[in-house]
Amino acid sequence: MSTPAAKDKPLFTPGPLTTSQTVKQAMLRDLGSRDREFIDLVRRVCQSLLDVAGVSRDDGYEAILMQGSGTFGIESVIGSSVPRDGKMLVVINGAYGDRVAKICDVLGIRTTILRCAENKRPSAADVENALTDDGTITNVAVVHCETTTGIVNPIEDIGRVVKEHGKVYFVDSMSAFGAVSFDFGACGIDYLVSSANKCIEGVPGFSFVICRRDTLLATEGYARSLSLDLLAQWKGLQSNGQFRFTPPTHALLAFGQALRELEAEGGVEGRAARYRANYERLTAGMRAMGFQEYLDPEHQGYIITSFRYPRHPNFDFDEFYDRLVEGGFVIYPGKVSDVACFRIGSIGRIFESDVQALLGRIRDTLAEMAIDPRDAVSS
Amino acid sequence: MSTPAAKDKPLFTPGPLTTSQTVKQAMLRDLGSRDREFIDLVRRVCQSLLDVAGVSRDDGYEAILMQGSGTFGIESVIGSSVPRDGKMLVVINGAYGDRVAKICDVLGIRTTILRCAENKRPSAADVENALTDDGTITNVAVVHCETTTGIVNPIEDIGRVVKEHGKVYFVDSMSAFGAVSFDFGACGIDYLVSSANKCIEGVPGFSFVICRRDTLLATEGYARSLSLDLLAQWKGLQSNGQFRFTPPTHALLAFGQALRELEAEGGVEGRAARYRANYERLTAGMRAMGFQEYLDPEHQGYIITSFRYPRHPNFDFDEFYDRLVEGGFVIYPGKVSDVACFRIGSIGRIFESDVQALLGRIRDTLAEMAIDPRDAVSS
Repeated sequence: MSTPAAKDKPLFTPGPLTTSQTVKQAMLRDLGSRDREFIDLVRRVCQSLLDVAGVSRDDGYEAILMQGSGTFGIESVIGSSVPRDGKMLVVINGAYGDRVAKICDVLGIRTTILRCAENKRPSAADVENALTDDGTITNVAVVHCETTTGIVNPIEDIGRVVKEHGKVYFVDSMSAFGAVSFDFGACGIDYLVSSANKCIEGVPGFSFVICRRDTLLATEGYARSLSLDLLAQWKGLQSNGQFRFTPPTHALLAFGQALRELEAEGGVEGRAARYRANYERLTAGMRAMGFQEYLDPEHQGYIITSFRYPRHPNFDFDEFYDRLVEGGFVIYPGKVSDVACFRIGSIGRIFESDVQALLGRIRDTLAEMAIDPRDAVSS
Repeated sequence: MSTPAAKDKPLFTPGPLTTSQTVKQAMLRDLGSRDREFIDLVRRVCQSLLDVAGVSRDDGYEAILMQGSGTFGIESVIGSSVPRDGKMLVVINGAYGDRVAKICDVLGIRTTILRCAENKRPSAADVENALTDDGTITNVAVVHCETTTGIVNPIEDIGRVVKEHGKVYFVDSMSAFGAVSFDFGACGIDYLVSSANKCIEGVPGFSFVICRRDTLLATEGYARSLSLDLLAQWKGLQSNGQFRFTPPTHALLAFGQALRELEAEGGVEGRAARYRANYERLTAGMRAMGFQEYLDPEHQGYIITSFRYPRHPNFDFDEFYDRLVEGGFVIYPGKVSDVACFRIGSIGRIFESDVQALLGRIRDTLAEMAIDPRDAVSS
């Protein structure tokens, strides 16, 4: 198992993440975008993504790659899947749900917002009520793992309701796909988005969409963008294996290697086991120092964890962050709207030994900042 | 000077292009997108782009990076710079002019099309007439080097007319910027787009926009997309040096190195000299075999050249192409609408020796296909 180059700090963030050296070395090539070798690579990558999702083309699913960051993929799905006179029910319990609503607004797509507290899971019953109340809703969007807090939302329960009402179901699984097991078919997902540099551990540069072919084929004329036209992107790749517009060839080479390494690690289950071990080591160590998680443990996923700022006059997040960076570790600011938190990710090419080293550095940093861990009682 | 890895075929295409090994090696790192080191890199890259353009922030110019391919950058400019009730005059003499018009159509932006033959340069007088005829035109778009044919359009003459009429001027300089000298200010350019993997010789993954700050600041509320909102992207980078959405960190690392290598080669003039030498070697060799260029030499740039298919019963482009690939060289299909052509690029990390090797392989391929070069009189 290769480790990152010694000079780079391990990234305990929601991405870009630490990747293996072999993933990065796969980029030491220049392939033409019409090269047979590149076309074969793209085909293999799409097949592997369906395999990771546990679905197949025979079952009616397709994998489509989209240039840009994860948000570009999300906008691509929203702009290409909601009819011109459609309405999106957006389930929101964090910043990434808000982003879906924001994209709808910019695109002139009507929305109904179903908002719940950032530390609570949205309930399928509330979705049921919303769909019963408003028959003009055509699409429903929910975030799988809300990276704002690390909460994992009940996509299967919600999906059952969405499908009972015959609506199109979109799951933003950006930070979960590849490391959280779920039954794609049982969830009734029409469109799922994730990106190259999350749990598959590739480098950033594109996102991917896994979708039902019949739902996709019914969207002719929906797209609000040329670049982000999902149906046209699929048709282009279908017709000759080529992207309509220049693909990030090097990021694709890295992703091909990353998918091989995911398989070598035991697929989704194997990766989940490592991330869960990272998470458990992290929370045990943080709790021992007196830190508190923002979420109740029952809602907390093992992808990323929000910790409340310690209630101590000496605690200043910017200083804490900078000292950790100087010590060789990168964590992440918080995003919860009304509670001061910071976040630590458990994903990417990091191992329990990296988490242990981070914990040691946090302990030392608290000492340098004259914050006695036993006094650091969080609010 | 480093050369590409031996295993990869040199790419005589309009991109993705062959890059130096050192550019690719710069990607063997994982930087966090909020890392000070990454923020500094982005700042340096933007400054270098302004330097390459020969403009400065003090003069009122800004450089903005946009995730995705070059087309994403073009759509970003169009969708963010044309007022809701605006109209774009699109000057078209090839497929990339057509693409600008297509983007306007998808975004619901009204257009006036000024079309001229693919082997002719559009005239400033025609632009003048179009602007005089229709006072509702707000924006004008022209392609700098039309990669369809390789023609270089008169962006300075057209720009003078556009500015006399007080319109916003957009130049798609995708395949020219960094290797073709021009006076940015004298052209009156408000927005210019190019991409990381053209003449700067980075890897694909993002495009960049160089624009007038005052024009940009006047576009509040214009954007038709969240991901491709150019003003919001600039504001995000301005406020804290960070991208709004995950940047392609590895492609940015490669680009930083590519900009250093551009400077080491003598900047735009130095790079132009190498590309021109490649072009001259190429056309001399191709002419000697009996091939004819599609364009008159007076219109032909040194970026990419369209050659007519030889008029010979044995000539089959797919076979010709495949044999060249087998021999280790990648050329490009044609895109001229009514004349059968193929294209050979002169750009990327290729040198006269590579061109000479390609010419030798073309000569051998013609022999294998039993096309006597002296019979290969083009139509």
